[in-house]
Amino acid sequence: MTTGTGFAEATEVRRLDDGRYAGAISPGWDIATNANGGYLLAIAARALCEATDRPDPVTITGHYLSPGKPGPVVLSTSIVKQGRRFTTATATMAADERPVLAVIGTCGDLAELDGPGTDPPEWSDRRPPDLPDPDDCIRIEPGDGFPPPFMGKVELRILPDDAGFRDATARSGRPLMRGWFRLRGDEPIDTLSLLCAADAFPPTIFNADLPVAWTPTIELTAHVRSRPRPGWLRCRFATHFITGGFLEEEGELWDSSGHLVAQSRQLALVPRPS
Amino acid sequence: MTTGTGFAEATEVRRLDDGRYAGAISPGWDIATNANGGYLLAIAARALCEATDRPDPVTITGHYLSPGKPGPVVLSTSIVKQGRRFTTATATMAADERPVLAVIGTCGDLAELDGPGTDPPEWSDRRPPDLPDPDDCIRIEPGDGFPPPFMGKVELRILPDDAGFRDATARSGRPLMRGWFRLRGDEPIDTLSLLCAADAFPPTIFNADLPVAWTPTIELTAHVRSRPRPGWLRCRFATHFITGGFLEEEGELWDSSGHLVAQSRQLALVPRPS
Repeated sequence: MTTGTGFAEATEVRRLDDGRYAGAISPGWDIATNANGGYLLAIAARALCEATDRPDPVTITGHYLSPGKPGPVVLSTSIVKQGRRFTTATATMAADERPVLAVIGTCGDLAELDGPGTDPPEWSDRRPPDLPDPDDCIRIEPGDGFPPPFMGKVELRILPDDAGFRDATARSGRPLMRGWFRLRGDEPIDTLSLLCAADAFPPTIFNADLPVAWTPTIELTAHVRSRPRPGWLRCRFATHFITGGFLEEEGELWDSSGHLVAQSRQLALVPRPS
Repeated sequence: MTTGTGFAEATEVRRLDDGRYAGAISPGWDIATNANGGYLLAIAARALCEATDRPDPVTITGHYLSPGKPGPVVLSTSIVKQGRRFTTATATMAADERPVLAVIGTCGDLAELDGPGTDPPEWSDRRPPDLPDPDDCIRIEPGDGFPPPFMGKVELRILPDDAGFRDATARSGRPLMRGWFRLRGDEPIDTLSLLCAADAFPPTIFNADLPVAWTPTIELTAHVRSRPRPGWLRCRFATHFITGGFLEEEGELWDSSGHLVAQSRQLALVPRPS
């Protein structure tokens, strides 16, 4: 099912001058003709990592300004502070001078923070979601309309309990989405593709009994805790508050060794019923 | 117990030129000589609201770069995109040209979004924390050392179950902190002081059975859902993952009418035991 370029190629950036980078929104990474938000965030994160000369985005926030369409983009980065272990920078992604995405991020080297000699305490009251084997979950394959072309780039296997959204009468009624994630073509997952995974699943609201179809993302923040081990990611996305015309969607991503590798939270607009 | 200036005065900014604003970190808003992170975020948010000419920060993210000490600061703002309902901008707060805080925010008018004629769906699977009356909770009053001077500016009443941290042998073992918040001197709470409330409580980790004392905030994001009604805020802060040398702290703030008015999440560094 792999079509076209992989993630690494589709997020490449090339240094220009004055902290600017040239990149491109690749075709095929879209949902209803608009590029996936996590994919856009990953392009910006790659520019931030290049500009800060740090390998990993530790915490990154993107504000979505206009839809991303396939074609060239320019990322204008600015270093805010270079510290001993972290560097903070901002970036704006623009297409034809139209702003698409504005980000702020703090980058570092997660191998160093997590490496030998460090021994911070570990504790959690949450576990990865219980999921059947990927082959026993629901495959989301790209179609002409839905599922979107983006599903030709990433491979999702949805927990059957959370796959009811495909038939409006079978929704679970809970804004919850759990499943497996990997890139197509066995491309390894790094800390940049985690950002893509953080926004790759169908919206939680698809499983709620509410007259809401689309919820444009205003802002997405991801915290990357460590570099993922090879293999499928276990993912859990949940919404707790649909109120005031907004909803949040929080994500938790675990790697194949059971480590939490990233958390995300996004704020989206809930259009009133038309 | 009110000491010195109130919140509105302590977060004032004055327009200079080229998108720059003059402000000040007021004395008394500190914890162990460093200004409270939520208070600093509120100063930056006020500059963003002035620069964007929008009354409310809808979603704002701050990256903490160096400790804030009392004295003048300059906020350099830059508009990224002005939309129909929202405007996105960045700001950097600097003291003596040393960067203290970098923010990105999207501002709007929450009265308009939440006002008559709008009818988005409402749903939640969470409720405000059950709290005894404020007078039956544990008061945190400022002391010479601990509690810090900042507690002379805000009034916290902690749920007795979560107040064990004051005696290291009585910690609940759960990184959870629930209680009431208001500003001293009956100052009304607006969408800017919500940002202060989002970082006002003792760290959740104080209640965990872990050898961790201080956890410097790297980044704090707050979503403001609606303008709070007058009265005490009910607040709940929880940590779910202490891993990879980091922890997150998520917050939920409800107003006196039981509406969720804000959510927050911060990423903090967990120093290894010394």
